[in-house]
Amino acid sequence: MSKEITSRAADYSQWYNDLIIKGELADYSAVRGCMVIRPYGYALWENMRDALDKMFKDTGHVNAYFPLFVPKSLFEAEEKNAEGFAKECAVVTHYRLKTDPNNKGKLMVDPEAKLEEELVIRPTSEAIIWNTYKDWIQSYRDLPLLINQWANVVRWEMRTRLFLRTAEFLWQEGHTAHATAEEALVETKKMLDVYATFAEEFMALPVIRGVKSASERFAGAEDTYCIEALMQDGKALQAGTSHFLGQNFAKAFDVKYLTKENKQEYVWATSWGVSTRLIGALVMAHSDDQGLILPPRIAPLQVVIVPIYKGEDQKKIVDAKVAEIMADLKRVGVRVKYDDSENQRPGWKFAEYEMKGVPVRLALGARDLEKNEIEVARRDTKEKKVVSLDGIAQYVDGLLLEIQEFMYNKAKAFRDENIRKADNWEEFVKLLDEKAGFISAHWDGTAETEDAIKDKTKATIRCIPNDNPAEDGVCVFSGKPSTQRVLFARAY
Amino acid sequence: MSKEITSRAADYSQWYNDLIIKGELADYSAVRGCMVIRPYGYALWENMRDALDKMFKDTGHVNAYFPLFVPKSLFEAEEKNAEGFAKECAVVTHYRLKTDPNNKGKLMVDPEAKLEEELVIRPTSEAIIWNTYKDWIQSYRDLPLLINQWANVVRWEMRTRLFLRTAEFLWQEGHTAHATAEEALVETKKMLDVYATFAEEFMALPVIRGVKSASERFAGAEDTYCIEALMQDGKALQAGTSHFLGQNFAKAFDVKYLTKENKQEYVWATSWGVSTRLIGALVMAHSDDQGLILPPRIAPLQVVIVPIYKGEDQKKIVDAKVAEIMADLKRVGVRVKYDDSENQRPGWKFAEYEMKGVPVRLALGARDLEKNEIEVARRDTKEKKVVSLDGIAQYVDGLLLEIQEFMYNKAKAFRDENIRKADNWEEFVKLLDEKAGFISAHWDGTAETEDAIKDKTKATIRCIPNDNPAEDGVCVFSGKPSTQRVLFARAY
Repeated sequence: MSKEITSRAADYSQWYNDLIIKGELADYSAVRGCMVIRPYGYALWENMRDALDKMFKDTGHVNAYFPLFVPKSLFEAEEKNAEGFAKECAVVTHYRLKTDPNNKGKLMVDPEAKLEEELVIRPTSEAIIWNTYKDWIQSYRDLPLLINQWANVVRWEMRTRLFLRTAEFLWQEGHTAHATAEEALVETKKMLDVYATFAEEFMALPVIRGVKSASERFAGAEDTYCIEALMQDGKALQAGTSHFLGQNFAKAFDVKYLTKENKQEYVWATSWGVSTRLIGALVMAHSDDQGLILPPRIAPLQVVIVPIYKGEDQKKIVDAKVAEIMADLKRVGVRVKYDDSENQRPGWKFAEYEMKGVPVRLALGARDLEKNEIEVARRDTKEKKVVSLDGIAQYVDGLLLEIQEFMYNKAKAFRDENIRKADNWEEFVKLLDEKAGFISAHWDGTAETEDAIKDKTKATIRCIPNDNPAEDGVCVFSGKPSTQRVLFARAY
Repeated sequence: MSKEITSRAADYSQWYNDLIIKGELADYSAVRGCMVIRPYGYALWENMRDALDKMFKDTGHVNAYFPLFVPKSLFEAEEKNAEGFAKECAVVTHYRLKTDPNNKGKLMVDPEAKLEEELVIRPTSEAIIWNTYKDWIQSYRDLPLLINQWANVVRWEMRTRLFLRTAEFLWQEGHTAHATAEEALVETKKMLDVYATFAEEFMALPVIRGVKSASERFAGAEDTYCIEALMQDGKALQAGTSHFLGQNFAKAFDVKYLTKENKQEYVWATSWGVSTRLIGALVMAHSDDQGLILPPRIAPLQVVIVPIYKGEDQKKIVDAKVAEIMADLKRVGVRVKYDDSENQRPGWKFAEYEMKGVPVRLALGARDLEKNEIEVARRDTKEKKVVSLDGIAQYVDGLLLEIQEFMYNKAKAFRDENIRKADNWEEFVKLLDEKAGFISAHWDGTAETEDAIKDKTKATIRCIPNDNPAEDGVCVFSGKPSTQRVLFARAY
């Protein structure tokens, strides 16, 4: 089995696909635009999901599950939302197949089983959820309602990429209802902070927190907050969004509550989500030409141990010591595997676990054992070291923390280096083409200018960062006055 | 808020719906046959899912995720499977909506966006998974392949019931591939045992393990093993199935492997699943006319504490003691809530938590505190006791174990009482109508007899129990010779 990876320099996009496929995170499927998440990729997602789920619960949210289907009449109730997603909707029109009379052994859609009303497969669940909230919310005592859902959604994208943009993807979507605008806004920002903390502390992925321009808002939102990350090719990636929905859905679905003062008021809403897309961000932010590099906190496997031996006698001695080390590592909570399979040589195994991005590799040979030593290799820096076997579990546990921190700092340094100011159009275009990254530039605040810049350069406004300083200037494109810089980039 | 529940005696079916709706496990939705799983019901499902997931992983399985959609041509590849599910398939035919020119603000399916090949929403995933396994399995080294998926599936049922039979439901489906028939059969039975253990130890639900008759087999299986439970109305409920699929899917999807002897052979398969239907079984097996009764091991909330006080001074003293008790209970891993909300009186709270089936209720008043005592109420037996506050956490922890065991024993005694022998048709019909439950009777082994019995009585063969003793007799219906009794029942 040859597992050659295209280098980033040769073809960044092919490098990415190679990592996903050969690293066994995902596979193409027989369904256009849909992927199979393989066990290794799913284990990574489970670790991410569990960490996020805990953070949601710690901030007072509970999980629930709403239908996959949205009747068309509900789907179209909030017009902006419907318009925003209409072009990407998979639609169920029939509920039965039958034997094809003209084609032995084949099935056909039964024309007699046409639905009276078509069902949209949820591209997002505001419509079906707010239609339910109408029944659950009567009085201020029912608020806030803080619900999250883990689910699959479908958006029929024309150009798909493994993890980054697939027709079906897995995600979570929080949907909350509040008595006041202020409270909803606090929630919107709180969940953005949860996402940022998760990205930085678990994924080792530094992010910029900010708010989207009007054109980049979620369809149906009053404001969309986001976290933006930078990939190694200098393109930005939106890693999570948190929307302040105002009273748009409450009005569309007539969700009112009785205030303490005995008045009927529409409730205020938020929604927020992250998806399996985060795995694409993780891969592109950290990996190298030898394969994946996964941050220890979410890596499915944190440590792999490979034995080096000749003959059964040596193997037995190594096995015995490895059993001890495994037990010690498990005791401190490390996810470890002993790969003593006989199908492959150690060199092959080294390359395989490098490909899979396992943070730490231990290689233990009979000779090391005599010297009471073991070889420790870091995936991120590729540094190898021979260390004492005494206290090896504590050493490795500490090393995992060090790697987690190192990966974050490295990604942050790269990100910080790649935020550059442009003060005129020439600079803007030159920076974009030669350096990529984020470009901090003045913008006149109009959608026209934003569209024109996007048309000419494919760069979009990624966000107006939180706590953005006021600064007088002129728009790089229109020359009109501007009060602050915003961040532009080409993006995934 | 009135939360009257219909009694079992008055209307068993309405009693069941009342429990689900008023116990806030689930709600009806705007989509025909689909339900909303509410936070309380979903927390119950999470506990069930986590326990099962651990058991699957402990037996060597890994999770993965396959597409929601199955292209029609793949779906029909295994003919028996396709035929079995064709009548229940939701079908996606279009991938876009557009503005309806004749209807302002409304959307319509865009006729230009018709899919070349229709997509079936998975009613089960054998087809899409085996089409993928073809690429993953080359040699004996790739076997066994032990994969599980947690997913939503859709079966367009005409008559739906909350949890028991819904158009969309949540489940897990294991799909394994093996080198030999023997190994696949061992896996089939092993997973049936996992289900039985889960049902009995976590759900306190005694089950009978057995194998289905040919007519009741999963479409595409060589053999279907099942666990069957008994509900309080004497109807049976299939709680989980594990299928030996032989080489049917391997042949349909051309999945061969290279043996150690360098030969190409088709692989052998199993699949097995349990779903949110289990929640329906749980409710119907244990609950009473006051509400749900949930087994402690999977109850979202195991203990609720209600304060009894007059005035703020008393409340403060009670609060302080409750904080201690809560900390002690959490330390021993008990899921506990303190309900000191001021909206409702203690009596209302007692009824509410009875309705919700919380296993243990503690009521602490200022006077109890003076005596260093607390009132402990069991949900299952409704027994109340005043006990010392010293070591209360250990007492409650022990009580939860006792309740779990008591619930199982009670359900088992009921089940055992309700397995009766019938030796002729008159007895069979009489028992079925007057006592319900399982009827152990001789059957001639033919599908014709099975069908005739079903037509006449609505009773089906639930299973041929594992380790069923050989016994010569005559079929209750046809009078033909029979070598063993099988279990009949009317079923959900």
